[in-house]
Amino acid sequence: MNATSDSSQLATYQLKDPQKLTTPCLLVYPELIASNLQEMLRLAGGAQRLRPHVKTHKTSQIIRMELEAGITKHKCATLGEALMLARAGAADVLIAYPQVGPSMGLLVDLLQRFPETRFSVTVDDLSNAQQLEQCFSDRKAQIDVMLDMDSGMHRTGIAPGPLAVELYAFLSQSESLHAAGLHVYDGQNHQPSRIEREAAVAALMQPVLRFVRELLAAGYSVPALVCGGTPTFPVFANFKCEDLPLSIELSPGTCVLSDFNYGRDYQDMSGIQNAAVLMTRVISKPEAGRVTVDLGHKAVSPDQPAGHRCHFLWPADVKEVGHSEEHLVLETSQAEQLSVGDVLYALPAHICPTVALHSHLQVVRQGDVCDSWPVDARDRVYSGF
Amino acid sequence: MNATSDSSQLATYQLKDPQKLTTPCLLVYPELIASNLQEMLRLAGGAQRLRPHVKTHKTSQIIRMELEAGITKHKCATLGEALMLARAGAADVLIAYPQVGPSMGLLVDLLQRFPETRFSVTVDDLSNAQQLEQCFSDRKAQIDVMLDMDSGMHRTGIAPGPLAVELYAFLSQSESLHAAGLHVYDGQNHQPSRIEREAAVAALMQPVLRFVRELLAAGYSVPALVCGGTPTFPVFANFKCEDLPLSIELSPGTCVLSDFNYGRDYQDMSGIQNAAVLMTRVISKPEAGRVTVDLGHKAVSPDQPAGHRCHFLWPADVKEVGHSEEHLVLETSQAEQLSVGDVLYALPAHICPTVALHSHLQVVRQGDVCDSWPVDARDRVYSGF
Repeated sequence: MNATSDSSQLATYQLKDPQKLTTPCLLVYPELIASNLQEMLRLAGGAQRLRPHVKTHKTSQIIRMELEAGITKHKCATLGEALMLARAGAADVLIAYPQVGPSMGLLVDLLQRFPETRFSVTVDDLSNAQQLEQCFSDRKAQIDVMLDMDSGMHRTGIAPGPLAVELYAFLSQSESLHAAGLHVYDGQNHQPSRIEREAAVAALMQPVLRFVRELLAAGYSVPALVCGGTPTFPVFANFKCEDLPLSIELSPGTCVLSDFNYGRDYQDMSGIQNAAVLMTRVISKPEAGRVTVDLGHKAVSPDQPAGHRCHFLWPADVKEVGHSEEHLVLETSQAEQLSVGDVLYALPAHICPTVALHSHLQVVRQGDVCDSWPVDARDRVYSGF
Repeated sequence: MNATSDSSQLATYQLKDPQKLTTPCLLVYPELIASNLQEMLRLAGGAQRLRPHVKTHKTSQIIRMELEAGITKHKCATLGEALMLARAGAADVLIAYPQVGPSMGLLVDLLQRFPETRFSVTVDDLSNAQQLEQCFSDRKAQIDVMLDMDSGMHRTGIAPGPLAVELYAFLSQSESLHAAGLHVYDGQNHQPSRIEREAAVAALMQPVLRFVRELLAAGYSVPALVCGGTPTFPVFANFKCEDLPLSIELSPGTCVLSDFNYGRDYQDMSGIQNAAVLMTRVISKPEAGRVTVDLGHKAVSPDQPAGHRCHFLWPADVKEVGHSEEHLVLETSQAEQLSVGDVLYALPAHICPTVALHSHLQVVRQGDVCDSWPVDARDRVYSGF
């Protein structure tokens, strides 16, 4: 990203009257979100193939935009996100996360409170599936369950093989659980090269499709595969397995809002635009060449390495030299031009955990702040619905 | 911290019935918080010398405990924290953070809404102080202002010298601002060696005290110095400057709850106990020797380096090998003993940003969850009070 594109980005994102907002805050641009949703639909080849993850934004108002764009399928990680989706009227919600302890009962509560929504969930462990079956059976509830495959990330999921067949058989024969296909997330794939990502997806899908054929041959139903995150979204979108009677659903998350790292790394998704920008102010000029802004790591996620948590739209040569809870210390040749109180704009390196640090998103249209959207699913669910 | 002390810690922290709580969650132990407050009062030598920072807990119920312990002075960073303190009935609130943009007007709103509370604020920049004076003068309001000294951290603050004298003179002569002393935070000091911390404090205080004498000689009032964070709390507590007519106030934050890194690094504060513990569950066993728990970096802060964000009370040999938004991947020789759904307990490496990831603290007395305290000041203030 060069200086020219940054200065045109500054024109896109800056507020006409920044004095209306306290800082730090997170600005979102509905026109750019709408454009990203259209680009996602275009890449997916239609709404029936798209199941975006809500973890990136956790915001009902953005779910409404997804629904208005014709998106009916959604993916989430937490029960708080699932609750938000159901409240917003989502028809089909995949909770791509194992349910443990009291979450199983809360999941039944959720289903019973929102009977119009189809919920599904993932499992990767037989004893966990047996407990889920027991819980749902006790409550006379039923749910679709996807088998979570380990495609090489080794974070969750079960590798194709006899144990995976045994677990899928259990789901298929269970009273309360219904085998609904496979969940194939590949967070290990973040190669900037499109060709390398394509090769990685082709390689990981070989054992997965062999496993699908084995399940089909054994008489089990495998109606759908939910595949990939944002980096491999366009790759899975072009992946062909037309000989198999199943649908591939794509579950990107980050590209709804996008962020600096994704824009930098995945230039094959150049149609996706940054739709969220951090606004911050200079709060101190502690020494020559240095300014401190109010963008601490309670306002921009520190999950990325220190020194690489933001990308300032201006000045071009900003270096992050210190980060604490409420302070980000910067060095720049432009420090002398800056005064305490001046406003700066920065793209977050990673938007998803950054959104979760804010209670509200400040909504900008044509340079004006026109609304403030609560980040509804920021809070976890601790008790019944 | 050895295996024996960890297993006794496990007995201290574990719940009798963990199935009542969903995970991830943050448990707090009021008896240990009360004990830490007493230890802080003992180290400080009395409540009149103690001004704890609320950024660590952001929780009204813990402010109530501080008030009950006789603590009347408080320090905070955000207007949200200041609002929470005023609502809880705090008598004296220092906002140790520069006010910029619309925050200046919000600060006046806050003062006018809570006339019973004495608020003060820090400045380190003359033009910022002039704007603050203008804002308060326009609204016919007044506020005590501390000069923020740069003691060597180079994050905020002004170094002792002619510009600092000029700024203190401005505060002293201003209509609406009242010079109230110096704020001396030394976040650069985190030497585990007590002797090294003492030497560092002695060195940084030389120019500060020279500056104080210069101000006093020029006829300015310097009623108080607010000094240090948690690492140098016991050092400043013993710091002597009895020849000067001023009070030293101590402003530790972290030790109200404490965390793994502080307990490990500052053994001269062995009277402080860990009063907050993360509870998590195994959600997957993706391969031999490995378990994944639901303690992602949306539930424990990733500001510490990857691999060093938690300390598990059991198993002793846990290694963090992967961390994403809702997953923490662990390797341990005890993986075979663990099942999906099993509960584990971990100390956060850094409690302050971890608290800010939770909407509630789960309150444990004698092994039972007896309450759920909202983390009130987790949200920022975006508009008027």
